[in-house]
Amino acid sequence: MLNPQLNVRGELQHLLSIEGLPRAILTQILDTAESFVGVTEREVKKVPLLRGKSVFNLFFEPSTRTRTTFEIAAKRLSADVINLNIAASSQTKGESLLDTVSNLSAMQADVFVVRHAASGAPYLIAGHVKPHEHVVNAGDGRHAHPTQGLLDLYTIRHYKKDFSALTVAIVGDILHSRVARSLIHGLTTLGVPEVRVIGPQTLLPTGVESMGVKVFHDMKRGLAGADVIVMLRLQNERMRGALLPSAQEFNKHYGLSAEKLSLAAADAIVMHPGPMNRGVEIDSGVADGPHSVILPQVTFGIAVRMAVMSIIAGNG
Amino acid sequence: MLNPQLNVRGELQHLLSIEGLPRAILTQILDTAESFVGVTEREVKKVPLLRGKSVFNLFFEPSTRTRTTFEIAAKRLSADVINLNIAASSQTKGESLLDTVSNLSAMQADVFVVRHAASGAPYLIAGHVKPHEHVVNAGDGRHAHPTQGLLDLYTIRHYKKDFSALTVAIVGDILHSRVARSLIHGLTTLGVPEVRVIGPQTLLPTGVESMGVKVFHDMKRGLAGADVIVMLRLQNERMRGALLPSAQEFNKHYGLSAEKLSLAAADAIVMHPGPMNRGVEIDSGVADGPHSVILPQVTFGIAVRMAVMSIIAGNG
Amino acid sequence: MLNPQLNVRGELQHLLSIEGLPRAILTQILDTAESFVGVTEREVKKVPLLRGKSVFNLFFEPSTRTRTTFEIAAKRLSADVINLNIAASSQTKGESLLDTVSNLSAMQADVFVVRHAASGAPYLIAGHVKPHEHVVNAGDGRHAHPTQGLLDLYTIRHYKKDFSALTVAIVGDILHSRVARSLIHGLTTLGVPEVRVIGPQTLLPTGVESMGVKVFHDMKRGLAGADVIVMLRLQNERMRGALLPSAQEFNKHYGLSAEKLSLAAADAIVMHPGPMNRGVEIDSGVADGPHSVILPQVTFGIAVRMAVMSIIAGNG
Repeated sequence: MLNPQLNVRGELQHLLSIEGLPRAILTQILDTAESFVGVTEREVKKVPLLRGKSVFNLFFEPSTRTRTTFEIAAKRLSADVINLNIAASSQTKGESLLDTVSNLSAMQADVFVVRHAASGAPYLIAGHVKPHEHVVNAGDGRHAHPTQGLLDLYTIRHYKKDFSALTVAIVGDILHSRVARSLIHGLTTLGVPEVRVIGPQTLLPTGVESMGVKVFHDMKRGLAGADVIVMLRLQNERMRGALLPSAQEFNKHYGLSAEKLSLAAADAIVMHPGPMNRGVEIDSGVADGPHSVILPQVTFGIAVRMAVMSIIAGNG
Repeated sequence: MLNPQLNVRGELQHLLSIEGLPRAILTQILDTAESFVGVTEREVKKVPLLRGKSVFNLFFEPSTRTRTTFEIAAKRLSADVINLNIAASSQTKGESLLDTVSNLSAMQADVFVVRHAASGAPYLIAGHVKPHEHVVNAGDGRHAHPTQGLLDLYTIRHYKKDFSALTVAIVGDILHSRVARSLIHGLTTLGVPEVRVIGPQTLLPTGVESMGVKVFHDMKRGLAGADVIVMLRLQNERMRGALLPSAQEFNKHYGLSAEKLSLAAADAIVMHPGPMNRGVEIDSGVADGPHSVILPQVTFGIAVRMAVMSIIAGNG
Repeated sequence: MLNPQLNVRGELQHLLSIEGLPRAILTQILDTAESFVGVTEREVKKVPLLRGKSVFNLFFEPSTRTRTTFEIAAKRLSADVINLNIAASSQTKGESLLDTVSNLSAMQADVFVVRHAASGAPYLIAGHVKPHEHVVNAGDGRHAHPTQGLLDLYTIRHYKKDFSALTVAIVGDILHSRVARSLIHGLTTLGVPEVRVIGPQTLLPTGVESMGVKVFHDMKRGLAGADVIVMLRLQNERMRGALLPSAQEFNKHYGLSAEKLSLAAADAIVMHPGPMNRGVEIDSGVADGPHSVILPQVTFGIAVRMAVMSIIAGNG
């Protein structure tokens, strides 16, 4: 079976998931992003790579933050950007997902950035669009959120230079995180020798070890010597359910405090996809402290999204 | 009385309705649209005709689909586009329609694209704006939706070349359709010899024959030999009311099936303004079949809207 | 203590309030706006001053009208504009105001246009952003709305040329108006010798005299000889409360009728920030009459916002 993300020449056609992307393409994206980090710091933060192209932000579930990052990235590539919040429109008129996409495609789209509550929706769309059209997954259910994973990889490479001797610890609600899954695949592909997941039994997927990670329920043991710590957001709704006793209890065991952080490598970096629950999964002193690279992640995220869109649009 | 759509030189000043537009202007719009179809297929889908002009999408009722087509068309003309969903704003502060328009006009608008639930609202606005400002009706109540009518005319001309020997059948809820009315006027003006409307008595306007059409209640007889079939969307709310027995019943009598389609001309084209109710007014096999030109309609719709906006903005 | 609106060279860094701005900077803004009035009347209404810059419209409370004016102004300066309606997004995920701003700042913002229900929110943000980022207050609670005040000053200067011999009367709900406060500071700074406030005791702030204004409860006496009349909008919610007997009663005492207007100077101008309650604080005959400069205010408002954004962005 062909990889749905690659074209016949093996180039990136769609970005649907980090899973299945060869190392060379991951590296191409990170290298291209590096060239755009400079652009975003210039006086005139624009390059004409997507001039006259139409990027549709197709959000079937609201996410102002993610939509904004793609909108900025596309505008800095000089694309025309159309924001579509679909929940409130034709879906309510009973039009199917694929009819909606066919219609937008008939308006001569170049790139669809898709956010959908249903896992697999971006794959369905990628299988439906015309050969010169491209799909970027901006989050599908619990499945994947590859640009977030890529910006995490970018951030790690930026600060640690080399993946080949790292210990990366991912902490918290692995079970419900689309970020964790994307990231684990990327780290493995880029040759990180040790990826750890840390969390209570109830927030770890069954059989997570099969992804090549080490499982820790004791955060202090899991953080020991880690070079990179990725804290995950604890969804509020989880705290109200049966999975967790309370936010306070979670913070005590799995929140990143200065004390727990001191067990990691002396030059460890702390990451978080945002938005943070300060005092729950991360203490404010750590979030704003010298190990935190949480805001640089956001900056790199723009460059990574510019890289992805310019690469796929350049591939036809 | 002067035609409110034309300026003193007889040129298009506003597009409010196909009714009242002379044949020469309809032809000018279709010819101009033809030149833009090429633009939308280029690598760089932009022309600088409206650079530095401000287009206001003034939507007093929501319609993501229609708003999107105008937004794309305006951006491909290099205009600055401002989307205004007015229901949620100053109307709720008790400001009148004309005060809202006066304000936007004072911000130096060039084109107002207006969607309003009240028939005639775009006429009211056109009578109120400054001489160099232009109004495009994007749908007013049940009255008119002229760009949809124009894109239908464009599509027919594209596939049939010549209007002078055609039989066009319009099927379904003529009574509540702003599309049907616009289209019938256009077809008549451009010299189509036979326009048929097909539907149950309850969904046809009283006295529709006075518009120069033939009425059929039996769809099979109405489709016999038709060159063009325009299916209308059946509004969901109609099906819940007293006008119709059920969606199934409607489909049986007035839905376009492969079997009914076989009664039309061998090279008949099938059109639909979208969004479709598959299995109600049109079967999926027909919607996606070889006679369907439903998606090309969408593509031509962008070019037609670019044509309308560039013509009126060019007329001062 | 340093003025939070000025940089170390005494140039405008943020626009938070007219209060505290030196006369030279007020004059610089008005002079710059004058140069942009011409731009907005040209065929191509764009200048490249903010090309490649990112302007974030950060609206924590909805205001389509104000957001639109800033969006237009930024686009005419060739900026990339991102509209963010924050109520519906990350605030509901429990993210703090400053975390939201830090995130957007990490996306390389240049200008934040901020509207917030809480007085002081734009100050908080201005104290938090990076040195090259700028904040424009687009209305914070009852506190300030400086671009509205500036456009009022611009309008007065445009029609009256000289501030030094004017009598300006501000009428209505001074207590709840963020416009009145900004304006009074500006008029005083620019040397207007007589500023009057006119309204019922219940709608005037306690100790308003300390701002250097004369207080009138009798509108006819207050208008006598006035060169400029600024009518304020009466919020609907006030009329339902205990502060006012009824809209009719208010109109009788404090609504601007042709009769009351005749007491002012023969060449008096009438202003209103909009949207107007016709028949409440202002009669339609006056709003649309020869003394009204209400629509020119809107036009000047675009130029003033262009001036503010281009000045602060030019200051680093």
